[in-house]
Amino acid sequence: MSRTSRRREGPAYPDVAEIDLLDVLHALSDPTRMTIVDTLDGTPERACGTFPVDVAPSTLSHHFKVLRESGLIRQREDGNRRLTTLRAADLEERFPGLLATVLAAYRATA
Amino acid sequence: MSRTSRRREGPAYPDVAEIDLLDVLHALSDPTRMTIVDTLDGTPERACGTFPVDVAPSTLSHHFKVLRESGLIRQREDGNRRLTTLRAADLEERFPGLLATVLAAYRATA
Repeated sequence: MSRTSRRREGPAYPDVAEIDLLDVLHALSDPTRMTIVDTLDGTPERACGTFPVDVAPSTLSHHFKVLRESGLIRQREDGNRRLTTLRAADLEERFPGLLATVLAAYRATA
Repeated sequence: MSRTSRRREGPAYPDVAEIDLLDVLHALSDPTRMTIVDTLDGTPERACGTFPVDVAPSTLSHHFKVLRESGLIRQREDGNRRLTTLRAADLEERFPGLLATVLAAYRATA
């Protein structure tokens, strides 16, 4: 494996097997975080300023931290942008059908 | 309709159409509340002292309140007992597949 293909991750990202259901449900129980996850679903990655949420930057940072620590998203720096990805495959592996069911419920009733 | 068949409910019980997804996810994000829901699933109704949780009565009362207000459970008095029911059919009508998917994830990884 080449050096550049290594993933560099801090402890803020749980491995798939460590993703905790209650942490995921808690992360999804907030309207701003649910909007972020809903917006990320089906897209490859997205810059932080482009989410349709109306909160202060410090509040948004907090929400991203909760989402990272729950295992729902990854983030990487790209120049002066921070790009966010939904860990959809990891979630599907850990909790089959969960994210799709929650997002369907959200879209049907939001 | 006879008088005795009327349902007597306070405002703490949301109607099916008013059950909020984020409230449900929040209610399920706590280990004591998830244990209560998991224990209720598939049983008709259950007395309050019989749940396999180890918390103070006042804490348990708080958790039941959160569960009632989210729409996940109903409770009724029966003599000196309080009986709790999971609103499984109401949840299934409001958010198809959600409760089953969450409980399957919980049982697979708890």
